[in-house]
Amino acid sequence: MALSPILARWTEVADVDGLPRQTQLYKLLKEAILDARLGPGSRLPPSRQLAADYRIARNTVLHAYQQLLAEGFLLADRRGTRVAELAAVRSPPGGDEVRRSPRLSQRAAQLQLRQGEAVLPFAPGVADLNAFPWASWARQLQKAWGEVSARQLAYAAPGGEPMLRQALADYLRARRGVVCTAEQVFIVAGAQVALDACARLLADVGDTVWLESPCYPAARSAMAAAGLNAVHVPVDREGMAPPESLWQQQPPRLLYLTPAHQYPLGSVLSLERRLEFLRRISDGWIIEDDYDSDFNHIQPGRALPAVQGLNADAPVIYVGTFSKLLYPGLRVAYMVVPRWATQALGGAIESLYRGGQAVEQRALARFLESGALTRHLRRMAPIYQRRQACLRQALGHAFGANSQILGGAAGLHLTLLLPDARPDHEIVRRAGQLGVTARALSEYYPAESVASSRNGLVLGYGMVEEGRIAELVTRLASTDWRDEDA
Amino acid sequence: MALSPILARWTEVADVDGLPRQTQLYKLLKEAILDARLGPGSRLPPSRQLAADYRIARNTVLHAYQQLLAEGFLLADRRGTRVAELAAVRSPPGGDEVRRSPRLSQRAAQLQLRQGEAVLPFAPGVADLNAFPWASWARQLQKAWGEVSARQLAYAAPGGEPMLRQALADYLRARRGVVCTAEQVFIVAGAQVALDACARLLADVGDTVWLESPCYPAARSAMAAAGLNAVHVPVDREGMAPPESLWQQQPPRLLYLTPAHQYPLGSVLSLERRLEFLRRISDGWIIEDDYDSDFNHIQPGRALPAVQGLNADAPVIYVGTFSKLLYPGLRVAYMVVPRWATQALGGAIESLYRGGQAVEQRALARFLESGALTRHLRRMAPIYQRRQACLRQALGHAFGANSQILGGAAGLHLTLLLPDARPDHEIVRRAGQLGVTARALSEYYPAESVASSRNGLVLGYGMVEEGRIAELVTRLASTDWRDEDA
Repeated sequence: MALSPILARWTEVADVDGLPRQTQLYKLLKEAILDARLGPGSRLPPSRQLAADYRIARNTVLHAYQQLLAEGFLLADRRGTRVAELAAVRSPPGGDEVRRSPRLSQRAAQLQLRQGEAVLPFAPGVADLNAFPWASWARQLQKAWGEVSARQLAYAAPGGEPMLRQALADYLRARRGVVCTAEQVFIVAGAQVALDACARLLADVGDTVWLESPCYPAARSAMAAAGLNAVHVPVDREGMAPPESLWQQQPPRLLYLTPAHQYPLGSVLSLERRLEFLRRISDGWIIEDDYDSDFNHIQPGRALPAVQGLNADAPVIYVGTFSKLLYPGLRVAYMVVPRWATQALGGAIESLYRGGQAVEQRALARFLESGALTRHLRRMAPIYQRRQACLRQALGHAFGANSQILGGAAGLHLTLLLPDARPDHEIVRRAGQLGVTARALSEYYPAESVASSRNGLVLGYGMVEEGRIAELVTRLASTDWRDEDA
Repeated sequence: MALSPILARWTEVADVDGLPRQTQLYKLLKEAILDARLGPGSRLPPSRQLAADYRIARNTVLHAYQQLLAEGFLLADRRGTRVAELAAVRSPPGGDEVRRSPRLSQRAAQLQLRQGEAVLPFAPGVADLNAFPWASWARQLQKAWGEVSARQLAYAAPGGEPMLRQALADYLRARRGVVCTAEQVFIVAGAQVALDACARLLADVGDTVWLESPCYPAARSAMAAAGLNAVHVPVDREGMAPPESLWQQQPPRLLYLTPAHQYPLGSVLSLERRLEFLRRISDGWIIEDDYDSDFNHIQPGRALPAVQGLNADAPVIYVGTFSKLLYPGLRVAYMVVPRWATQALGGAIESLYRGGQAVEQRALARFLESGALTRHLRRMAPIYQRRQACLRQALGHAFGANSQILGGAAGLHLTLLLPDARPDHEIVRRAGQLGVTARALSEYYPAESVASSRNGLVLGYGMVEEGRIAELVTRLASTDWRDEDA
């Protein structure tokens, strides 16, 4: 009788699991069937006999048998109860442990893995969460929850909550010169979703995408995941600088740009290039990632408006996010699509991504309409300007003639170029040990262009108080010059 | 002087836009430069002269000029101010209107467009939002907001809030027999994201995915968008039924299943097939979409547990969502991945999708831990059972011998098979006019298998009160039998 070794565990298990007795018996029998210790066709003793043999209440046995019969592990016939004809899918305990390799796709292997990094000083891409007007935001959220109806809690309206689309259209027109109406605005769950939508809905596998080199890694990942052929175009002081031959040989189906403040080098895309790209893209699409435009540090009102506004009929998808302004966890971003593409592209977005967060969207709409967001930005602008100036000074002091600082016209980071002697990822590793997060500039370059990659650090100043900057930079510099002794 | 026709609009515009005068002048000049009415190199009059000629305050002119100089539209030299050498990117007003075709990708064309449909009676896939314990949920949300720190508002912890991952692991172990620890649970922004992650991270372009036919359309879209080669496998009373030859000729890299309640036909995948799939998938992955398992209508405790639990070492990705239980707009779903794939797959998920909604995740964790969710499910189970019984009876009465009802072991919908005489999409169209949402069964079949598609209706009963069912079904039936006269 094959049952004895199986039920030998009965007493051990009983005290440990805290499960009802019938569940324990059910589990022991099921496991034995799954690993073929109880083979197909094996007979089980009648419930009364099993109960007597093992001093179990008969009801316990009956329940376990019934559950296994219901799930198809056991069959009842005239002669009693037997194990169904089932293929074994597990090894018996003590057998060879399964060692599988996590066979991911080739495209998964191309992704640049993002380290789960803490929000520490100089982590780029994070605004000052401590300065965010929580009270005012919480009020709007509460108000929105109060208005909630079943409809708002189902999937959000296609394209997003109408009142947010309207508020955003107004905001982007006034603040960024984006020419659009509410119908052209689509709310999505984060900038990454917007990039992903562009990659898949506007281009096919093997199509060419021009990326800035260096580039925002998440954009590169989105394009790789969509199977696009990435061409890495160098960046100079005027932004992306494609050689003329590239237009002939590999014209872009998608052209990904960060015009307001190139990420990470910080160039502002010049007007000449903006117009040139608009003129020549006719057979493709420009993705304008305006990620960093909300903080312009050059004279207010003097920042270049969005590329989209230069020609509202051009094939431009304008992408923006609230992550920088409010808080990254909110996961609300938006795409502005050309009027003539609204219906087709809107339908496709809708069928790939289900919207949600209607409550947050309504709160956000009011936050925009009431002017609370603009007030917050206005309040933060001089604070960020001072932090940038302070960081600039501290970097100059600590790294001196060996370094060069790029960027700062907008956004919340500066990029420090360093001599190649000490590789940036080494500095980053050691800075991490000292509680400072910096990103290595070389990581923003694609693996293919390691040769042309520059050595340096990308330093966010959104989350670091002015008074701490000098000390933190000193700490950062110490990783560079001091000899390692541990 | 080319300025006269341009500034002729000055007075018209002035009253309309409500913009500051300097902004109006800036806009008029900028537009003229962009459409080359003011060509490259054109000289502009000195600000003093322009101000005098057009009776504009000189400061207004100065501001407009300065803004255009800052943006690079104008250049200043010894002789004064001229238009920069810029390529025109717009047609002048009155020129040919741009007519562009919204050139989407070929894969976008393959997507099944989802109609933005209202949540009306019989819309499938929606639980009873009115019955949801809002007060208790709102309390948890409020509590979570109260605990908020900057960290929680940044990107969520990789994989999701630890307390939610733990609560989910406990919940899935107890309720669905999923064998996992918290580290294997990954929180994502909706089931669609989970399917998308599987399609891209586990398979490459051209790889084979087996889909049920008929199938959940959003799963088909996710696979199409990832460039996979879909094989549509017929479904019978025991779930997906692949012919033996298919295993040899087109073995699946991905195998997408809805074992608990096939969507939309409602079969429960038999134990034999579950074990067979587990045994034969060795070189690929099973995606177990347990979308509908939370409402088991067969004898409690008798539902088949998850496929994943039959062999925790098998390459199974278990996918579930809170949309059905709480509200679709919440957008929180989860994937359980095998222990041996946790690190590699977790890293890849992290680099493609940024998590967020830490506050909601914490609220959800408490909602699970406190037992509030289980209580809600227990309360709703008999209500849904009665609705199903009522719908079943009403359908039998109204459609009688001409019909057959499928499904109902779990979930929140029934599928009604109808004779082919009256195409289902026609019934759906007319039902919509009568305020009833039903889905055409034929739409769940891929375009390639139109020949084998069955005619019928997919009817959700989650959102419809018991007392209204009979009347609504009568209305629905009227669209089928009554002659159209309008």
